[in-house]
Amino acid sequence: MVAFGGNAILRAGQKGTWEDQLQNVEGACEQLLPLIRKGYSLVIGHGNGPQVGNELLRQEGGRKCFGLQVMPMDFCGAETQGSIAYMIETGLEKVLEREGIDRKVVSLVTRVEVGEKDPGFQNPTKPVGPYYTKEEAEKMDGTFKEDAAGRGYRKVVASPKPLGINNIELVERLARDGYIVITVGGGGIPVVKDTVGYRGVEAVIDKDLASALAAVKMNADELYILTDVPKICINFNKPDQQALDVLTVADAKRYLAEGQFGEGSMAPKVRAAIFFVESTGGTCIISETRIIK
Amino acid sequence: MVAFGGNAILRAGQKGTWEDQLQNVEGACEQLLPLIRKGYSLVIGHGNGPQVGNELLRQEGGRKCFGLQVMPMDFCGAETQGSIAYMIETGLEKVLEREGIDRKVVSLVTRVEVGEKDPGFQNPTKPVGPYYTKEEAEKMDGTFKEDAAGRGYRKVVASPKPLGINNIELVERLARDGYIVITVGGGGIPVVKDTVGYRGVEAVIDKDLASALAAVKMNADELYILTDVPKICINFNKPDQQALDVLTVADAKRYLAEGQFGEGSMAPKVRAAIFFVESTGGTCIISETRIIK
Repeated sequence: MVAFGGNAILRAGQKGTWEDQLQNVEGACEQLLPLIRKGYSLVIGHGNGPQVGNELLRQEGGRKCFGLQVMPMDFCGAETQGSIAYMIETGLEKVLEREGIDRKVVSLVTRVEVGEKDPGFQNPTKPVGPYYTKEEAEKMDGTFKEDAAGRGYRKVVASPKPLGINNIELVERLARDGYIVITVGGGGIPVVKDTVGYRGVEAVIDKDLASALAAVKMNADELYILTDVPKICINFNKPDQQALDVLTVADAKRYLAEGQFGEGSMAPKVRAAIFFVESTGGTCIISETRIIK
Repeated sequence: MVAFGGNAILRAGQKGTWEDQLQNVEGACEQLLPLIRKGYSLVIGHGNGPQVGNELLRQEGGRKCFGLQVMPMDFCGAETQGSIAYMIETGLEKVLEREGIDRKVVSLVTRVEVGEKDPGFQNPTKPVGPYYTKEEAEKMDGTFKEDAAGRGYRKVVASPKPLGINNIELVERLARDGYIVITVGGGGIPVVKDTVGYRGVEAVIDKDLASALAAVKMNADELYILTDVPKICINFNKPDQQALDVLTVADAKRYLAEGQFGEGSMAPKVRAAIFFVESTGGTCIISETRIIK
């Protein structure tokens, strides 16, 4: 199981044009080649922070200019699943064809179940959308928090814990059958159990936690979380910053408790890694850092 | 194979709120119950005219209000595949659960290949987006045409012929395995062969023709095209209007040549029906009219 960051496709500092995104996504897919060449069964999850952020701006623009209803977060998440999966599928196929590798790619629209009473709904922590200066952020609606890497301020929304992934047994079957499967885009479309069936909720599920849950449900051997920093660091952005090659679950928990990892950046990735490693005994690789039991 | 109209979900005259769409989609899914009760293998295609129209307005709003790039038609089509599939999946599951029917639903993000030199790119005929008055339409960019049923004016875009459907063999396999599969949303994300892999193009593929092609590729027994008129009519909106219960391919071709069916409404459905019936010898049902060999 591999989780791409939303920033792997729409990078900070870029305007996020269509052309940029298509180029970035091919670069991200090239990182998968070592795994694909080894013949791994492969499932890809991905973030949607920057993309759903733009979608939220377009929703607001549609309201202001044309009186359209602003659609809820589950709808916007579903939209980005369609468009990002399309990009990854197309980019990945180009990479595969250049390498002469014959593997099929398939993308599923994927709902992820969360608990209606999840405390995440009371305490928004998930950053979405573009970075703003402090001054810009103060003029806008919603809750804004400063990014851990000092890139600016971003809107934060509810981030409930994923409990179940729709069609995950099919995802596993297809992956074991040779398909490269794209799923849990943006952490999955957040739904809760309704009187009958399911109903969408206003939230963004952490994509690393959703990918970790997918990896656990499929009993994956490895979980890769690809991000835009080379390794996990302790004392990040301080004079004694130290990059880690290997991190045990016990150390990871201690560093988390010390507040070593930024909320909305490395902390949720490390939590996802701990969850996966403890649940399966497998290895999680965050960029180049290996998290082991 | 069943093709839902985009209007089955977002009806003319409605504001298209999220709540309206969720309610409409359950109603549309209830129409499938007779087929599901008989144990049919079932694949669902759907239109996206009204939805991609709203998306186009939001793109324009995002540009005006926030300086965002207006994304191309393939991107917008991919977005609506995500959001509409999510709606249909959720609505269909509610309908199935109420009936105590145990069938799984899965939605694929689906690209459809078209020819780069398709004449459709020179002659736009596919209506997208909301209805406007003549006066409103004249003030807007793009090509606008009057709707056959007199509901107003709509933007028209390129509508190239679908040549191939990505992962159709997997769709068939899943459908024959009991899954209800949602695919070719909005007629599919339009792509052409590139030097390597595929690349998106600015177009909307007719969803009935894409569904018919899917039905042909899967060798489906029946193709259902569900629309908001009860039967195919000749002399439509005239004193001698006549609703048809059965229509042979030969008669259908004659009526088409006579201009009996409106472009952008019944004509493409009848063409899709002819293509399916001639290719497979199966039956196409448009609303309640049966098209046979």
